[in-house]
Amino acid sequence: MGLLDYFRSTRRGSASVAKERLQILVAHDRIARDSPSYLPMMQKELLAVICKYVQVDQDAISVNLEQDGNQEILELNIVLPEHSSPQQAVGS
Amino acid sequence: MGLLDYFRSTRRGSASVAKERLQILVAHDRIARDSPSYLPMMQKELLAVICKYVQVDQDAISVNLEQDGNQEILELNIVLPEHSSPQQAVGS
Repeated sequence: MGLLDYFRSTRRGSASVAKERLQILVAHDRIARDSPSYLPMMQKELLAVICKYVQVDQDAISVNLEQDGNQEILELNIVLPEHSSPQQAVGS
Repeated sequence: MGLLDYFRSTRRGSASVAKERLQILVAHDRIARDSPSYLPMMQKELLAVICKYVQVDQDAISVNLEQDGNQEILELNIVLPEHSSPQQAVGS
């Protein structure tokens, strides 16, 4: 079973709770462990992009950044307000 | 096992091939299926953010957008050039 299938199947279980949600995973495999990490900076800009499309309550954003050797994973979980709609830019 | 654990374990298998990689997954659970999708538009802006941090060869980007009922998943797989380094903006 591929990652995408797993991703979809695990999320389907929580779909019974009808909420608008966005989940973003960014994984970076690096060759050199000592190269600087840019995921923390990238995270802010990714959130800025998302805020251009949907209204995001800052309290509804959960951020997790993990590092394991040469691999970094950034996880953003966002519960969107029920009245969220595209194209209502609110800035960041 | 949580999604993050699975994500990490499946990726560790391919880590033996030492390449710089970025993988981005964006999942959107929508309440109303007939609301417009913004993931295709968001995809371009997310790539623009990534290009600010690393050099990305357009041929090295694999994009997959799937829709299943009220759930959409956008997947971006990027193999980074070995000489890629942060802060070398190349535009988008």
